[in-house]
Amino acid sequence: MVNVRDAVLEALHRGPVSGPALARELGVSRTAVWKAIELLRREGYSIEGEPRRGYVLAGHDLLSPYEIRRGLGTAVLGREVVCLEEVGSTNDLAKIRAAEGAAEGLVVVAAVQREGRGRLGRTWRSPEGGVWLSVLLRPRLEPSRAPILALAAGVAVARSLKGLYGLDARLKWPNDVLIGGRKIAGILTEMGAELGRLDYVVVGVGVNADFGLEALPAGLRERATTLREEVGGPISRLALVRRILEELERAYEEALEPGLLDEYKGLSATLGKMVRVVTGDATLQGKAVDVDRDGALIIERGDGLVRALYGECVHLDTPP
Amino acid sequence: MVNVRDAVLEALHRGPVSGPALARELGVSRTAVWKAIELLRREGYSIEGEPRRGYVLAGHDLLSPYEIRRGLGTAVLGREVVCLEEVGSTNDLAKIRAAEGAAEGLVVVAAVQREGRGRLGRTWRSPEGGVWLSVLLRPRLEPSRAPILALAAGVAVARSLKGLYGLDARLKWPNDVLIGGRKIAGILTEMGAELGRLDYVVVGVGVNADFGLEALPAGLRERATTLREEVGGPISRLALVRRILEELERAYEEALEPGLLDEYKGLSATLGKMVRVVTGDATLQGKAVDVDRDGALIIERGDGLVRALYGECVHLDTPP
Repeated sequence: MVNVRDAVLEALHRGPVSGPALARELGVSRTAVWKAIELLRREGYSIEGEPRRGYVLAGHDLLSPYEIRRGLGTAVLGREVVCLEEVGSTNDLAKIRAAEGAAEGLVVVAAVQREGRGRLGRTWRSPEGGVWLSVLLRPRLEPSRAPILALAAGVAVARSLKGLYGLDARLKWPNDVLIGGRKIAGILTEMGAELGRLDYVVVGVGVNADFGLEALPAGLRERATTLREEVGGPISRLALVRRILEELERAYEEALEPGLLDEYKGLSATLGKMVRVVTGDATLQGKAVDVDRDGALIIERGDGLVRALYGECVHLDTPP
Repeated sequence: MVNVRDAVLEALHRGPVSGPALARELGVSRTAVWKAIELLRREGYSIEGEPRRGYVLAGHDLLSPYEIRRGLGTAVLGREVVCLEEVGSTNDLAKIRAAEGAAEGLVVVAAVQREGRGRLGRTWRSPEGGVWLSVLLRPRLEPSRAPILALAAGVAVARSLKGLYGLDARLKWPNDVLIGGRKIAGILTEMGAELGRLDYVVVGVGVNADFGLEALPAGLRERATTLREEVGGPISRLALVRRILEELERAYEEALEPGLLDEYKGLSATLGKMVRVVTGDATLQGKAVDVDRDGALIIERGDGLVRALYGECVHLDTPP
């Protein structure tokens, strides 16, 4: 049996179409078509009725599994898509689904995160209008090789912002995404493993997308920015989610190739700068000179090179 | 206000005591003492009333937080103890509690696991009478250094079986515990991490303790054994749980010292043997010659040394 709503939506995505033509094509009554149009309008689609062209699907920014998956250029990511109005944290939900055995490629998208998390257990403000998503990967990697996936995710988000908006996105080690030195996106990569065997990796991406700086706490406004501020107009979350998924899948495939690490270094806002990295036990300060294949930042100090695998990185104003 | 049950139980643990003496000591009526004794008997304590000595706490094997923690020689493990009649898997519950923020040292003990798990996602038969426990650790280690904790847990269980029963326990890489070549205990170590930063490690220990081989499926009986079979009599799960927790804490403290790896190698049933290790991608076959500081098994083949960080290890009958 034809689902009239789905068939009408699919037809509208192909272009303007009249009610009678739609009814003929689907083999249903004009009333059934009209009811489907009304249903779609209630769901949030903007559908205009124009005298000569018929129904036209105007702009919309609906985050639904159908809209995200429709013609998506991925093989794995998005095989299952979960869209929520609100969630505690998309990473937490993806981890629960991972523990329940969900397959690689699951995507969780939420309009709002009540308790969005950043690296080091920090809060991540996630208001309406942002892109808050997590993807579930099950890579066949040694756990110690997994950090490269976090760098790959940073490259994917930078590529997305460059590709869609022409923005010159740079990466602060390990994978904060900056525009003009101000943070526009963050990535939180978490894993579950038996020792020696990776079970899953969840990559969470948060982008300050379709909202203005006023949606962020005053204390963040100097160090953060949003896509709406940078582009100077409204942002389609849907287009951004789709592009990020496509770029994530590509970067994920390339993660073990040396070219990706080179691209990461080319996008780095950290290399060449004087930095301070606060790890659990120590504070490392010096000039950032390299990122190794494990994702660690190599810092040159007076007494030689030191390596930071994890920590909070601060760019110092001291010239290099 | 005195909790009479708790005070009576504590007094009985110190030695035989008469009802009137107990009532005087606790400042309660003889009837209150008698009610507490009846309550404890219903809980499963065997308390005998002897003419001249008074109440005597006879043998019992109750797995309760009180019994496990009473005078336990640990500083961290057992700060919180959860005892359950039945659970899906003690590791799963410990991981959930870890995600909820439980502190290091949490111990989960269950009389029965419905869905006990072994390494590589295998089922682990967990009938009544066994010791099924998990401990939550939050070590400050790089994730790549965490496998040493799995080896440490193997050493701890071997020490417990040697110390309590004089059994010559050996370790099959990575950490199956064998008596006379047959498996008596298994360890499943799992972790949660941000990339680069360990969040938690859950060490699960399962010991075939106070049950006979007939409680295991026929297909396992040739390759497995139980403490009751080896010792030839009943086994106190309580004493074993307490000893394992003490040995785990000690081995955990020693995990980063070279001596522990040496002890592990000394207990190894694998080193010197011809082995086959099936990893996700490959089958490695040759003579097991070493275990490195990452916990990987080093195998000598005709074409040189290879390294197995994870996998199913089979001891081949071929002489070395």
